[in-house]
Amino acid sequence: MGAAQANSPAGAILRPAIAALSGSAIREVANAGIGRADVLPFWFGESDEVTPPAVREAAAESLRRGETFYSHNLGLPELREAIAAYTARLHPAPGPGRIAVTSSGVSALMIAMQMLVGAGDEVVAVVPVWPNLTAQPAILGAQVVRVALRPDARGAWGLDLDALRAAVTSRTRVLLVNAPNNPTGWVLRRDEQRALLDHCRATRTWIVADEVYERIVFDDAGPAGRGPCAPSFLDLATPEDPLVVVHSFSKTFLMTGWRLGWMVLPPALVDAAGKLLEFNSSCAPVFVQRGAQAALAMAEDFVPALVARLRACRDRLSAGLEALPGVTAAPPTGGLYAFFRVQGCDDSLAWAKSLVAEHGLGLAPGVAFGPEGEGWLRWCFASREPERLDEGLRRLARALGL
Amino acid sequence: MGAAQANSPAGAILRPAIAALSGSAIREVANAGIGRADVLPFWFGESDEVTPPAVREAAAESLRRGETFYSHNLGLPELREAIAAYTARLHPAPGPGRIAVTSSGVSALMIAMQMLVGAGDEVVAVVPVWPNLTAQPAILGAQVVRVALRPDARGAWGLDLDALRAAVTSRTRVLLVNAPNNPTGWVLRRDEQRALLDHCRATRTWIVADEVYERIVFDDAGPAGRGPCAPSFLDLATPEDPLVVVHSFSKTFLMTGWRLGWMVLPPALVDAAGKLLEFNSSCAPVFVQRGAQAALAMAEDFVPALVARLRACRDRLSAGLEALPGVTAAPPTGGLYAFFRVQGCDDSLAWAKSLVAEHGLGLAPGVAFGPEGEGWLRWCFASREPERLDEGLRRLARALGL
Repeated sequence: MGAAQANSPAGAILRPAIAALSGSAIREVANAGIGRADVLPFWFGESDEVTPPAVREAAAESLRRGETFYSHNLGLPELREAIAAYTARLHPAPGPGRIAVTSSGVSALMIAMQMLVGAGDEVVAVVPVWPNLTAQPAILGAQVVRVALRPDARGAWGLDLDALRAAVTSRTRVLLVNAPNNPTGWVLRRDEQRALLDHCRATRTWIVADEVYERIVFDDAGPAGRGPCAPSFLDLATPEDPLVVVHSFSKTFLMTGWRLGWMVLPPALVDAAGKLLEFNSSCAPVFVQRGAQAALAMAEDFVPALVARLRACRDRLSAGLEALPGVTAAPPTGGLYAFFRVQGCDDSLAWAKSLVAEHGLGLAPGVAFGPEGEGWLRWCFASREPERLDEGLRRLARALGL
Repeated sequence: MGAAQANSPAGAILRPAIAALSGSAIREVANAGIGRADVLPFWFGESDEVTPPAVREAAAESLRRGETFYSHNLGLPELREAIAAYTARLHPAPGPGRIAVTSSGVSALMIAMQMLVGAGDEVVAVVPVWPNLTAQPAILGAQVVRVALRPDARGAWGLDLDALRAAVTSRTRVLLVNAPNNPTGWVLRRDEQRALLDHCRATRTWIVADEVYERIVFDDAGPAGRGPCAPSFLDLATPEDPLVVVHSFSKTFLMTGWRLGWMVLPPALVDAAGKLLEFNSSCAPVFVQRGAQAALAMAEDFVPALVARLRACRDRLSAGLEALPGVTAAPPTGGLYAFFRVQGCDDSLAWAKSLVAEHGLGLAPGVAFGPEGEGWLRWCFASREPERLDEGLRRLARALGL
């Protein structure tokens, strides 16, 4: 996939590390179905719900006021304060000085990688995982060591803590962990977090924790009265620990298309983050940040209600999948996805393409998240119309010859 | 400036290449004046005019319609078509397939660098220049060789073509050229472009041309009836030449805060650009792209009128500067800046700080653009109220003891 060199006739070539990058296998499947009204798309990681009106109106009002100029690299001071206050309701208060606003969660991850990882450095990643996390260190010339989560007989994925500790050594610059995990729905437990933090303190390894799904959990009520929340490294770490936590407005506030995220940083890294923000995107649009302020202002009502809707979607889809013979699917503990295995499916990309072409069902192939996901499929269940999930299940049953 | 290592108590350190990056000397000056209503700020590269109402309304209307989802990595097809059509009115038609929409011009430059440059590679940059251009290859571990423009006795900067050709060899992966140039106002001539393109074909060197100021020129009427336009490498290159041209909506359409740009790419690089867009920012917000469509739709009326306003600002400021004894300032051929030298000013950062502190005048120090700019100051003259320039000139005269 995409490993051919792009040579101009003049002989100037694309950088080999970039030519070797895989394109997105999710996009490959989606491209096969784009423009077909009969396809039910569950391939991307977003809800089909529009961003709440109050958020959109705040951005439109900012545009009307003429907020169309450059702003601070690290984000509007009032947004950084709002993020710090929001975080403090869930975790020990970081203070606004440790918050950097970024133009998307993926941009936050790229900036974290640029800060910490150069050519030849070693990064350990817990996989399968959203492919952007492992592509970024590869772009920077680093070596990625993959440590696999393992599914049990029911299809629930878990961590082999000893294997991960054995992989993270004093040579490891960064440990990349995405939990709640895309695609498996795995949630890192508190005791596992504590063990990893202790281990990384000893090996002097940075933890880059992608916690963008922290609010989308189904078995954790979160701090009293604050709504659902997964365990976070922020609950355990001191401000000076080697930890960068990455967040996004995308999933929690139905703002995928807005491209806004943030980092919680040790104080010693904030200046470097500001410089790298300047050199990557300079700043996020002010009117986008105004939308984010409106989202945070309504978080305590909005998030529990959203998670209740998502839980209903999850329950409906998981029950339907578990009822299909030959399908292995444990209800996910967190995230937006059912990740399931179908007996006899060894080539998830080919199977996902045929599901689109022959049955109008758009799913993401497990191999898109690494070889550890081969044989599995990812189904995003976030929908304002849960009946769409039922129709998808009927199409899957037909594809299975049931 | 920022060269100290950031060590966490656990001993995990910031990457040395990042610790060594200079922070922005422009920001350093601006920070000294922020919150002071008595300071006239001319330090940043943006007009004080708000984005045109039609552009803002198009984005607000998109938000009302609920366009809040992920979109294509390379940009909305209709925006790519509009950019291709806009380009075709100024240069040979590239076709929409060669356009990649990016989340800012600086992001386009970063993605171009990621495509083409890895650790240990050599990049030649024409300087002085906006510091982001030379910081990006440094972040990727590349070596930057600086080739200096030279001022003549009047203060007009020009290229030493022979020196540049001598610096670009078969070891050079990328030649970075920003023309019309920030900060000097230098415009690359057609014959120089032809010579550089021929040379880079021979050495198999990529040209990354930052042409974001191409419309902001004062001595070039552009193609008949199309409004002002500087010479572009696009006029000379074949689609397969080793050339990436970077553009932005920021300067031409008063959209600095929107963070939207684009690249014109050889066909062989488009897939790689799409992958790197996914891994850097995934996509630009649809509502931002709708604003850009509205901007392009009015370009043929808007741009000439904007440039006429900017020309009046330039003429007013340049005349005022030339009248000051001890000041060397040639009227710039392109761009938003007067770049001028003051007799006896050897430390532009200290002088710019004292101008803010003692005279309420906010300018950018020349050293922010490299050591080649030391002793010079940059003044952004883009203003809807040219009288502000007069007041700035009075403050400068007072600072000079006149």
